[in-house]
Amino acid sequence: EVVFVEQRPSPRGVSQYPWSGRKGFYFHYWALFDGHAGSGAAVMASERLHLHICEQLRDLVEILQDPSPPPICLPHDTRAGSAEPNQVSSTEDHGEVPNDAVPRFHLEKAVSHESLVIGAIENAFKHMDDQIERERASQHLPGGCCALAAIYLMGKFYVANAGDSRAIIIRNGEIIPMSREFTPETERQRLQFLALLRPELLGKEFTHLEFPRRIQPKELGKKMLYRDQNMNGWAYKKIEEDDLKFPLIFGEGKKARMMATIGVTRGLGDHDLKVFSSNIHIKPFLSCFPEVRVYDLTQYEHCPDDVLVLGTDGLWDVTNDKEVAGVVMEVLMSYEPNDPCRYTMVAQELVVRSRGVLKERGWRLANDKLGSGDDISVFVIPLGGPGNYT
Amino acid sequence: EVVFVEQRPSPRGVSQYPWSGRKGFYFHYWALFDGHAGSGAAVMASERLHLHICEQLRDLVEILQDPSPPPICLPHDTRAGSAEPNQVSSTEDHGEVPNDAVPRFHLEKAVSHESLVIGAIENAFKHMDDQIERERASQHLPGGCCALAAIYLMGKFYVANAGDSRAIIIRNGEIIPMSREFTPETERQRLQFLALLRPELLGKEFTHLEFPRRIQPKELGKKMLYRDQNMNGWAYKKIEEDDLKFPLIFGEGKKARMMATIGVTRGLGDHDLKVFSSNIHIKPFLSCFPEVRVYDLTQYEHCPDDVLVLGTDGLWDVTNDKEVAGVVMEVLMSYEPNDPCRYTMVAQELVVRSRGVLKERGWRLANDKLGSGDDISVFVIPLGGPGNYT
Repeated sequence: EVVFVEQRPSPRGVSQYPWSGRKGFYFHYWALFDGHAGSGAAVMASERLHLHICEQLRDLVEILQDPSPPPICLPHDTRAGSAEPNQVSSTEDHGEVPNDAVPRFHLEKAVSHESLVIGAIENAFKHMDDQIERERASQHLPGGCCALAAIYLMGKFYVANAGDSRAIIIRNGEIIPMSREFTPETERQRLQFLALLRPELLGKEFTHLEFPRRIQPKELGKKMLYRDQNMNGWAYKKIEEDDLKFPLIFGEGKKARMMATIGVTRGLGDHDLKVFSSNIHIKPFLSCFPEVRVYDLTQYEHCPDDVLVLGTDGLWDVTNDKEVAGVVMEVLMSYEPNDPCRYTMVAQELVVRSRGVLKERGWRLANDKLGSGDDISVFVIPLGGPGNYT
Repeated sequence: EVVFVEQRPSPRGVSQYPWSGRKGFYFHYWALFDGHAGSGAAVMASERLHLHICEQLRDLVEILQDPSPPPICLPHDTRAGSAEPNQVSSTEDHGEVPNDAVPRFHLEKAVSHESLVIGAIENAFKHMDDQIERERASQHLPGGCCALAAIYLMGKFYVANAGDSRAIIIRNGEIIPMSREFTPETERQRLQFLALLRPELLGKEFTHLEFPRRIQPKELGKKMLYRDQNMNGWAYKKIEEDDLKFPLIFGEGKKARMMATIGVTRGLGDHDLKVFSSNIHIKPFLSCFPEVRVYDLTQYEHCPDDVLVLGTDGLWDVTNDKEVAGVVMEVLMSYEPNDPCRYTMVAQELVVRSRGVLKERGWRLANDKLGSGDDISVFVIPLGGPGNYT
């Protein structure tokens, strides 16, 4: 999708640029939504997330186009068009006493344009999640979804990830990770910390401690390895009654689950998700906020073989970064550099190879390992190809 | 310090190795304690932390010396010497019904010897902190301290850091960071998250939101940049009454403070530290847990010029990694490779250069920048020098 971000009209009807009829900019947008427990949340997010991003950016149109640092403070009830200049001298000029003794000028933090875009994307995810919550009953939006979005804006790619999808850039054969996965294992400490501070969220079913396996009641009094929220290592503790509860985080790798229910810890939706046959809600532990990584396209000369690959976990579970890079190079080589189809062919090939072929003993990859039984979606986005993003 | 870890005698007097009079192992230990608001906590930690580490390791003597994976569960009231083998088959053999339907064998997490040492060091820091809390009144232990410890044990260096000291390895001219600093800026999200969940810890003085500068009361209703706990970017929000409170995290770089009071967010002590002229305690926001990084000395051939450098912030504030590496190489070159003094001379030189020389306009470095006014302590530890750690 190519989205036009139109500056919001000033409520006072005043603009710094009254002659510009339709001031704004474009961004390019790609996203993957990997649903679970129903497709409703994923479908709605795919239809709306870019509009929420657009909405968040509308107040920033003039600020982002102005090369000077963004203003820290905007005047009352107006838009960026009539923003106060980034100075605090006016109050001093009038002889007013500042409300703190420290000279504020020295302690004013510089905020970059880039971090405003990141903030806009982060809040757009939150608004998307809120909308799913509001409309889930009327619009029949069951379940939740992981979301991975790539936004190209003013020379930079912003890759926002909430869930276990994954993005990498392949540049001149080199692999640059553009996201990390959010799972019960990678977010263990945040989840344990929340459970420690809000034990009521665990019902009476779970313990915030991690153990390497379930404990049996008869093991009471023995010493067992455990991990608390502030630990990365393991230590032994004497097993007490409370330790017999099910661990908040349990299992390893793809089988790791939070509250024995869900294998991803960020994403959109899931407002009604509960622990099986209980009244314990999962949502308080899930975060709808993405991690946003930035890649400055202007810092390098890109060739037509340099790409950004977005894929759901169905791809990455069976095909690692290096194998993906290999397929990318192999397939791109077999097409003319200016053939726009070549990127689509790479994406198709990545899906086909990760699915495998049906043999006697199930779907098998070329190396005879089991193919992915999960859904597989892939984008291959050229960074220096025949198209451009201007 | 070289510390002998003697296996704790079994309470039943039974040992797998009854012939061994004094079973145990040695570890080598170096540490820096950078005190603030009094030296008591730092002095006590320097006298005791290695003993707490030793104490935590005493139960692990046989487990760490046994090449098989550590047992997940130890029997009732006995030590590792009579540990249950790492198997769960015995219960199945007796036809007992396991307490969950999932076969436990497949879901048992492997735990490495290394992660037991990490857990022991983490808990030793906690016990050290608890001891300072218990004895601070009777032993007159004011203040707190950052702690950076390096432990050499069974072929590996464990570098544990709680605070803003810093460790790097210089190997063949290459710089390998062995710690990261814990400050209000690096730990912003943990601190904001805690403040959000436990607002009572802020008294009525602080807001968990971050702003780029103080807000003046007259700015109420304007839009100001802010950052919440789940954001890395910035966005504008309308200023409300609550936003006029002092931000939990404020300032930048070396001037960043938590609750306008402290510039480090991990360390030992500080149990009585309060916000100036208030009853708000700082300690709940401080963590005494270190981050432990591991460096396997057996993975590389080390030459006599390869070193581990530990330094307090007084060093790193004015001398960066690369400059430190330069001084290391320069000074080591001027001594014979088997002269054990050469490492001490590097440490001295690093301190002297970071202090600078007294000129008309204060203490100046060679590049005429201001020298460090802070205390400066440095260890330079050979990785492949004339000494060895066996």
